[in-house]
Amino acid sequence: MRENYRNLKVAVLGGGTVGSEVAYRLLHNREELGRRIGAELDLIGVAVRDVTKARRTDVPADLLTTDAHSLVVAADIVVELMGGIEPARELILLALESGADVITANKALLAHHGPELFDAAAKVGAQLYYEAAVAGAIPIIRPLRDSLAGDEVHRILGIVNGTTNFILDLMDTKGQSMEEALQIAKDLGYAEADPTADVGGHDAQQKAALLAQLAFHTAIPLESVGREGITEITLDQVNQAKQAGYVIKLLAICERVAQDGGGYGVSVRVHPTLVPRSHPLAAVHGANNAVFVEAEAAGSLMFYGAGAGGPETASAVLGDIVSAARRHVVGGPGVGESTHADLPVVDPGIVPTRYQISLSVTDQPGVLAAIATVFSEAGVSVETLSQSTPYGENHESQTATLVIQTHQASEADLSHTVEKLAGNPVVHQVTGVVRVEG
Amino acid sequence: MRENYRNLKVAVLGGGTVGSEVAYRLLHNREELGRRIGAELDLIGVAVRDVTKARRTDVPADLLTTDAHSLVVAADIVVELMGGIEPARELILLALESGADVITANKALLAHHGPELFDAAAKVGAQLYYEAAVAGAIPIIRPLRDSLAGDEVHRILGIVNGTTNFILDLMDTKGQSMEEALQIAKDLGYAEADPTADVGGHDAQQKAALLAQLAFHTAIPLESVGREGITEITLDQVNQAKQAGYVIKLLAICERVAQDGGGYGVSVRVHPTLVPRSHPLAAVHGANNAVFVEAEAAGSLMFYGAGAGGPETASAVLGDIVSAARRHVVGGPGVGESTHADLPVVDPGIVPTRYQISLSVTDQPGVLAAIATVFSEAGVSVETLSQSTPYGENHESQTATLVIQTHQASEADLSHTVEKLAGNPVVHQVTGVVRVEG
Repeated sequence: MRENYRNLKVAVLGGGTVGSEVAYRLLHNREELGRRIGAELDLIGVAVRDVTKARRTDVPADLLTTDAHSLVVAADIVVELMGGIEPARELILLALESGADVITANKALLAHHGPELFDAAAKVGAQLYYEAAVAGAIPIIRPLRDSLAGDEVHRILGIVNGTTNFILDLMDTKGQSMEEALQIAKDLGYAEADPTADVGGHDAQQKAALLAQLAFHTAIPLESVGREGITEITLDQVNQAKQAGYVIKLLAICERVAQDGGGYGVSVRVHPTLVPRSHPLAAVHGANNAVFVEAEAAGSLMFYGAGAGGPETASAVLGDIVSAARRHVVGGPGVGESTHADLPVVDPGIVPTRYQISLSVTDQPGVLAAIATVFSEAGVSVETLSQSTPYGENHESQTATLVIQTHQASEADLSHTVEKLAGNPVVHQVTGVVRVEG
Repeated sequence: MRENYRNLKVAVLGGGTVGSEVAYRLLHNREELGRRIGAELDLIGVAVRDVTKARRTDVPADLLTTDAHSLVVAADIVVELMGGIEPARELILLALESGADVITANKALLAHHGPELFDAAAKVGAQLYYEAAVAGAIPIIRPLRDSLAGDEVHRILGIVNGTTNFILDLMDTKGQSMEEALQIAKDLGYAEADPTADVGGHDAQQKAALLAQLAFHTAIPLESVGREGITEITLDQVNQAKQAGYVIKLLAICERVAQDGGGYGVSVRVHPTLVPRSHPLAAVHGANNAVFVEAEAAGSLMFYGAGAGGPETASAVLGDIVSAARRHVVGGPGVGESTHADLPVVDPGIVPTRYQISLSVTDQPGVLAAIATVFSEAGVSVETLSQSTPYGENHESQTATLVIQTHQASEADLSHTVEKLAGNPVVHQVTGVVRVEG
């Protein structure tokens, strides 16, 4: 750890989708990131294989280099986004040996060579961050490593591969066959031309190994992780599951299991699994990911979000860069509690919101028109207006219940409207005003 | 920050439910926590108001003290779980001034005096942790502070008060009135005798202020947070919402809003809100909490779990204690990646699981008995056996589809059963075998 540098040198290895997104954000959010950290981040270069082929033109050409080694040696923070085993492994080791902190999204590398890399980091007191390696932008590494560090994890059930969840979800919700769903996933860019890594469960297997190691403080050889992909799943099975109240998900399962001879062991496996429809994981649709954690004291937790994508992965990488940088700024601003942005706090009354208003009105012709006129005169636009089935005692009276949902309106306009409604002779009572979000 | 202490002295202020739970776990998990940190935690005392009344007898009597000041001054890590403003504020300031890191779950104190406390921490390079102050065991502070530190948060929608969610959920799912639901919440211990802090939205208001400050790097005076409780919500409104495809939730809403004159402002408010049934927040039942975050790059994330409870809150506090302690152990084990536990990794084949097996069988009398016999002879217990509505082409053939769900069975026993089934003359084909979890 190199302490008290005021400007920290950041090197990005890899100029693909995520690499250029990270570089772009480092450059364009430099001032704000500097305020959050208490030190500025200097992007000193982006290492690419072929400078002429570098994809994103808004990374300035003079930052592109093919000399990854020189870049790594000069950096305080090295961000490895090249993928693959070599030269990523060799460059990360070089970075750690030279005392730099390393951020990587390379799950394959970590699953195969994690212990070697973590040992190298520990030896020099450097840190290796990899929030982006599992479940994209969803913070799961940090919660497992830090938030649950005083607890005992019993079990993790994770939907950690977006491609397979997209396919299984299409089969379940649209009745598509495996072949049709896979083709749609390919057409939409959710599956690669050769989808083996995803549908064969290899990608999920690597992520399961990383999650289990963190949760159980135990080295998990990749080959010890049971793996079964979704290729054998048929629409019949999906439909049978549905009839029985289940949905089929590809789950990464990491469990602490009691051993016959006493003590505990760890079981890690990936396979298609029936999940009850009432379980929070059953509601994870499309290419989303979610990790469900059962811990002794914390109980059940779930972390949900997008599992992949350039900006999403870049978000996780940038979070790690800020964490790494903050370690270098001892005595700097409290982590995250600085109020440097100092934005004006807006009176909630002036923020426009949608509203639902319930009215008890006289049940006679012309009422709807009278009510609609009140809204239009107050400048509040109506989205839906419906006569609700009456509840309670008024269903034999000459009273009807109207429920009106508005488009966005300011609180002032809304209050004005409610006043007018209350004063209108056809309105017995304004029975409710609730805001609408989401 | 006191560096390189091998044993770290921890003081707990407050001997209530959470305080004694934390003390208990510090004592009983001392070795494992020590391995995770790379240094041992010495619990040097638990400060209580009245030693004779200290609730939990398994905190050794010689650790109980009424002299909070002496305890604070002697500690490296101070854990404030007394609640209330004074003397909590004064003791935290004393701790920070003496260079100790502080952990607190005291949202009221932070909402009223946060800036003063964070400034005091920053001045000496100490840290103030408060993961337990919002949403109990759900890691939300750390993700906002660290994981999203390189992103821009646009909006937070949070169910951050378990009592009100419990009440609204009862009204929605059981058709109970507000009064009935509140009484049940009281009977079950989800609501206090005086429920004003919860149902009036005061508790959620404090949490909203803390979330908004972290998300927008802006000091949020508590009085600038709009607040409306759930007391005016009627069963009619809940039912009308239901008819329109919505559910009413008490939401803490923190938003970055464009200002008329250009630039951004922050709007923070708490009020009952209609949420579409398809939104992930609509599926948060009972006394659970969830925080839904929309960020520029990360997209939509959700964090879900128990919002309160002794063990749950203690889990969050212990995570903070471990984080604080790890800061003191420079050059110690990589944060969380140590594999000290070294549990045996179990062959996934021997972990018992429930299975669903689909069979295509001859549609004739006696088939069910024949199939049941195969299971019973193989020692695999059947939970449900149903004849599924046939899909595809066999609905006019003499073939029926059976779907069997088993109790827990080992993979070996299951494979043996499937072999026997495949060889049975009434079985045309074993069309699917899928595991069941959750």
